[in-house]
Amino acid sequence: MVEDARKLANGRDRIDFSAEPARYRHWKLAIDGEIATLLMDVDENGGLFEGYQLKLNSYDLGVDIELADALLRLRFEHPSVKVLVLRSAKNRVFCAGANIRMLAGSSHAHKVNFCKFTNETRNAFEDASEFSGLRTICVINGTAAGGGYELALAADHIILVDDGSASVALPEVPLLAVLPGTGGLTRLTDKRKVRRDRADVFCTTEEGVKGKRAVEWRLVDEVAPSTRLETVIAERAREFAEKSPRLAGDGIVLEPLRRQRTPDAIEYAFVSVALDTKDRLASITLRSADSLPPATVEEMVAFGASFWPLQLARELDDAILDIRNNEFEIAAILFKSSGTSETVLAYDAFLEEHREHWLAREIRLLWKRVLKRLDMTSRTIVALVEPGSCFAGTLAEIVFAADRSYMFDGERDGDNRAPAKIALAKCNFGLYPMSNGLTRLQSRFLADQGDLERAREKLGESIDAEEAQELGLVTFSLDDIDWDDELRVFLEERRSFSPDSLTGLEANLRFGGPETMESKIFARLSAWQNWIFQRPNAVGEEGALRRYGSGQKPVFDPRRV
Amino acid sequence: MVEDARKLANGRDRIDFSAEPARYRHWKLAIDGEIATLLMDVDENGGLFEGYQLKLNSYDLGVDIELADALLRLRFEHPSVKVLVLRSAKNRVFCAGANIRMLAGSSHAHKVNFCKFTNETRNAFEDASEFSGLRTICVINGTAAGGGYELALAADHIILVDDGSASVALPEVPLLAVLPGTGGLTRLTDKRKVRRDRADVFCTTEEGVKGKRAVEWRLVDEVAPSTRLETVIAERAREFAEKSPRLAGDGIVLEPLRRQRTPDAIEYAFVSVALDTKDRLASITLRSADSLPPATVEEMVAFGASFWPLQLARELDDAILDIRNNEFEIAAILFKSSGTSETVLAYDAFLEEHREHWLAREIRLLWKRVLKRLDMTSRTIVALVEPGSCFAGTLAEIVFAADRSYMFDGERDGDNRAPAKIALAKCNFGLYPMSNGLTRLQSRFLADQGDLERAREKLGESIDAEEAQELGLVTFSLDDIDWDDELRVFLEERRSFSPDSLTGLEANLRFGGPETMESKIFARLSAWQNWIFQRPNAVGEEGALRRYGSGQKPVFDPRRV
Repeated sequence: MVEDARKLANGRDRIDFSAEPARYRHWKLAIDGEIATLLMDVDENGGLFEGYQLKLNSYDLGVDIELADALLRLRFEHPSVKVLVLRSAKNRVFCAGANIRMLAGSSHAHKVNFCKFTNETRNAFEDASEFSGLRTICVINGTAAGGGYELALAADHIILVDDGSASVALPEVPLLAVLPGTGGLTRLTDKRKVRRDRADVFCTTEEGVKGKRAVEWRLVDEVAPSTRLETVIAERAREFAEKSPRLAGDGIVLEPLRRQRTPDAIEYAFVSVALDTKDRLASITLRSADSLPPATVEEMVAFGASFWPLQLARELDDAILDIRNNEFEIAAILFKSSGTSETVLAYDAFLEEHREHWLAREIRLLWKRVLKRLDMTSRTIVALVEPGSCFAGTLAEIVFAADRSYMFDGERDGDNRAPAKIALAKCNFGLYPMSNGLTRLQSRFLADQGDLERAREKLGESIDAEEAQELGLVTFSLDDIDWDDELRVFLEERRSFSPDSLTGLEANLRFGGPETMESKIFARLSAWQNWIFQRPNAVGEEGALRRYGSGQKPVFDPRRV
Repeated sequence: MVEDARKLANGRDRIDFSAEPARYRHWKLAIDGEIATLLMDVDENGGLFEGYQLKLNSYDLGVDIELADALLRLRFEHPSVKVLVLRSAKNRVFCAGANIRMLAGSSHAHKVNFCKFTNETRNAFEDASEFSGLRTICVINGTAAGGGYELALAADHIILVDDGSASVALPEVPLLAVLPGTGGLTRLTDKRKVRRDRADVFCTTEEGVKGKRAVEWRLVDEVAPSTRLETVIAERAREFAEKSPRLAGDGIVLEPLRRQRTPDAIEYAFVSVALDTKDRLASITLRSADSLPPATVEEMVAFGASFWPLQLARELDDAILDIRNNEFEIAAILFKSSGTSETVLAYDAFLEEHREHWLAREIRLLWKRVLKRLDMTSRTIVALVEPGSCFAGTLAEIVFAADRSYMFDGERDGDNRAPAKIALAKCNFGLYPMSNGLTRLQSRFLADQGDLERAREKLGESIDAEEAQELGLVTFSLDDIDWDDELRVFLEERRSFSPDSLTGLEANLRFGGPETMESKIFARLSAWQNWIFQRPNAVGEEGALRRYGSGQKPVFDPRRV
C-alpha cells in the first residue's frame, strides 16, 4: 500500500476544513427566492493533493469540504430556501465519482477518512430534508457513476435526462474491485428499496442503467427529455417548495472561524486543542459562554455566528475534523470543559424555549450532527469531569459519547474551584439521537429503562461525582489521591494497544441496540469497504484500483473467503 | 500472511463436517431425563490441523463441529431434554477460547470461515432456546477467556464459581490485537446489555472480571461458592426445566449421511454436487422425494433421519459447509432442482398440518437454519429454475436466497419435460426468516407491501416463467434461444470480478432493511474483525497474533484510520 505518498497541493501541511462560497473552486451556489441551485463544476486543477486531475467532475476530499460548507450555509445563511437543485455545469456529465487516481495513491487511513466525511456530508443532505424541510432535487444530465450516483442518492428526488445516453451506474465492483461504499449499497436497498437481485445486476453492470428502466428499477424518480428538462425542474422545485415546512428567516452570516495554530495547539474562541504527540493524546477543552443568553430571539440573530452555542459547535466540529484527518497518531481525545454549568444550562433553556425559531432549530440540529461526528471518530474518546468544568446539558452529551468518563470526586489539593458536577437538561432525553436512532443515555441504559428514569428525575440538579457514579452517568469517580495515577495508567495502556483493534472495539461498543440506514452505512457497508481497501485484489500492485487506467488488467487471487 | 500453511491432521485433504457422539474427541454428552450435560474436555492432540496443541480447552473448527453436532442431536435424538448444562471437565479452566496458534497459522480465508461457523453454532444455541425450549446453563469453573466466554454468552444463564479466581474475560484487544469476534462484543451490548463504558473496561482488562462485580456488570447471571456449586446447578436446571415449553417425544436417530465423493462431485441421496474447478462453479441439485408424505406423524417418526425433508436439509447443510470450507476457488453456486413440485408441496403441507409435533417443528427449524447458512455463504448464489425442476414451497426459498435467479421460459428443444414452474406455500410467508428478521420475500419486496400480497394470492398455484417475472419472483425469464448464452456471459463475467468485492457486495445487498443482534454479529462485528484479520498490527510478522507466546512484544503501527 502506498502510505501517504501524496503531498497536499500548494505546499500546505494540513487539510483545512474551512471554506466559504467566495473561495469555492468546485461549486457555484445561486439563490433565487425559495430555490437555490448548486452547480458542480469541479476545477480539474484544484485537487487537494498533488498528482491527479479532477476530470469529469470527479471529486476528492477538497471538493466535498466545499459541498458540506454549501449545505451548511444554506441552513444558516439562507433559511428561506426550501429547495436545492443539485446539478452539473459540465456537458453530458453529472459526476464521475471519487477520483480514482486520488484513491489509488492515498494511504489506507486517508481513504477511510475520506469516505467517512463524504458519508457524513450525504447524511447531512437527508438530515436537512427531514428536519429542516430543505429538499434536494438532483438533476442528472449525463454520466452519474459511482460516487456521482451515490451523491444523487442523497437527494429527495432524482431527475434523469432521457436522451438515450445519460445513465446512472455503480461500476465499482466491475471496474475497481471495491464497493459503492459512500452509502451506495445501503441507500439502494434501504432508501430506494431497489429489489435485491436488480441491485445485484445494476451494481455489476459497468455501463449502468438509463431511461425508463432506471425509473422502473427505482434508481431514479423520473426521466425527462432534454427539451422539457428545465420545465420539469422548475415544476418539481415549485411542488417541493410548496410542501416544505421550512421555517423561514433572514439568515445570518457564518463568519470564518478564527483559529490560531501552533505545532502543538489550536486555539479557537471557546475551544482549545492541545496536541501531545509524544504521548499520542489530544485534549479538547470546551469553555462556557462569557455571559448569559440574551433575552430575545432578535438578539440571538444579531449575535449571528458568534452566538455561543453556534460558535462552539462550529469550533468543535472543526477541531474533530482536524484531528481525524491530520493527526493520525493521536490515540485518544481527552475532553475537558471549563466554565459554569448554569450558563450552559441557560443557553439550553433559551434554545428550548425558542425551539420553533429557525435559528434555534438549526443550532440544535448542528449540535446533533457534531455529536454524531464525534461518535464516528475512530479515536478513544475520554471525558474528564474535573473541578471547574461545565458538563451540563448539551455539553454533558460529550460525557455520554465518551468510551469512558472519569469524574473528579471532591476538591483538588491546592485548587479552590468547586467540586465537579454534571447536570442534565431536557436536551439529553431526545434531542440528540445517535446514528442508531437512540439517545446516548438510551444507548447507555439499554439494560434497564429505570436507569433512564432515575437520571430524568435529576433534571437540572447538580450531580456530584458520587451520585453520578451511582446513577451510572460516569464510568469512574476518583479522588485526588487516585486521579493522576489511574489516568496515567489507563492512557499508557490504551496507547499500547493495537489502534486497529481499538477502532473495531469502539465501533462495536458505541452502537448497542438497533441499527438505522445511517448506522448501517457506517457499520455493515463501511466495515466491508475498509476490509476491501486492505485486500490485494483492490490495492495490491496488480489490484484493480492500482491498475485502473493503466491499460493493464488487474490480476485477482480467485479465492473467496 | 501465512496462506494455508497448515496441513490437516491425519493426512486428510478435506474438512469433514460430520460427527457423531461415539467418535467425539472433545465433548462428552450425558442425558439424565430432562437434563443433559455436555462436558468440554478438549483433547490436546486432537487438533483439526497439524502444528498446534489444543491446551486448556482451547478450540479449533474440529472442536466446534462436534459441538454443533451435539446440539443437533439434542434437538432430534433427545427431544425430552429441556435443559443443557454446558461445563468443563478440566480443573479450574472452562475454556481458553479459540486456539491462538491455530489462528496465527491459518489463512485469512480459514480464519473468516472458522469464525462464521462458530458464530452459527452459538446462534444455534439461542435458536434452540427460543424456538425449541431447550435452555442452556453454562457453568464457569475457572478461566473463561475470549472465545470461552463468548461460548458462555450463547447460554441462557451463566453461573460463575466464586472462588476468588474463576473469571470471565475478553482479552482479545490487549493480548492479540483482534476483536472478541465470535459474537462477543455484540452479545455484551445487545444481549446482556452491559453498559458500554463498562464493556470498554472489561474488554481491555486482560485478567477479566470475577465474583460479584461480574454479576453487577451483567457479565454473568450469578455466582456460587464452590461448596454450593452442584446444588445451585441442580436447582437452576430444575427451574429452567419446569419453565421450558419444549414439546417432548421419543427422539429419532440421526444416522450418518451417506456421501460418495469423487474429485469433482459429491453424491448424497437427494443432493448432487458437481464441482467445475476450471470455471470455478459448483452446481447443487436438490431432488424431491420419491414418494408422497406418509399419512401420520407416527410414520414420519418411523422414517426418522430418512424422512425426506430432514434428510434433504442435512445433506444440503453438509454440501454448503463442504464448499465453503474446502473449495475456496468456487466463485458461484448454481442451485438446480429436479422432481415434482406437488411432492414438495405435499411435504410442506404435511409439516404445516403437524406443526405442533416436536419432529415436524424441529425439521422446519433446521430448514430455517440451513437457509440462513446459505444467506451467509460468501459465494455468488444463483438459482436456475428449469424444466423438470421443483422449486416449490421450502425449496422456493432457495430461489429467493439467490443473488440472482434465472427461469426457463417454455420448453427446451429436444426435452419433453414440462416447462418450469414455481409454487409458493404458506411457509414462504413467515416460517423462514433471515438473520435480519424478515422473510426472503419481505426482504425482496421492501419497496411495496403490495408485491408481497400479489405473491400471496398465488399460494399453491403453478407460476410459469412469464408470471414469475411479472410478480418479481425471479430476476430473469429466458427462453431456449437466450438461456445458454446469457448464463455463459453472466458466469464468465462474475468470475472475472474480484472475489472480495463480490463478498462485500453480496453481504450488503442480501440484507436490506432492519438488523437484529444476529445480523449485527455477521455484519458490524464480523466485517470489522475481518478487516483486523488483514491488518499488519494483528497478522503481520511483528503483529500481536503472530508474536503471541513468542516472548517478543508485538510492534504496532500507531496510526489510527
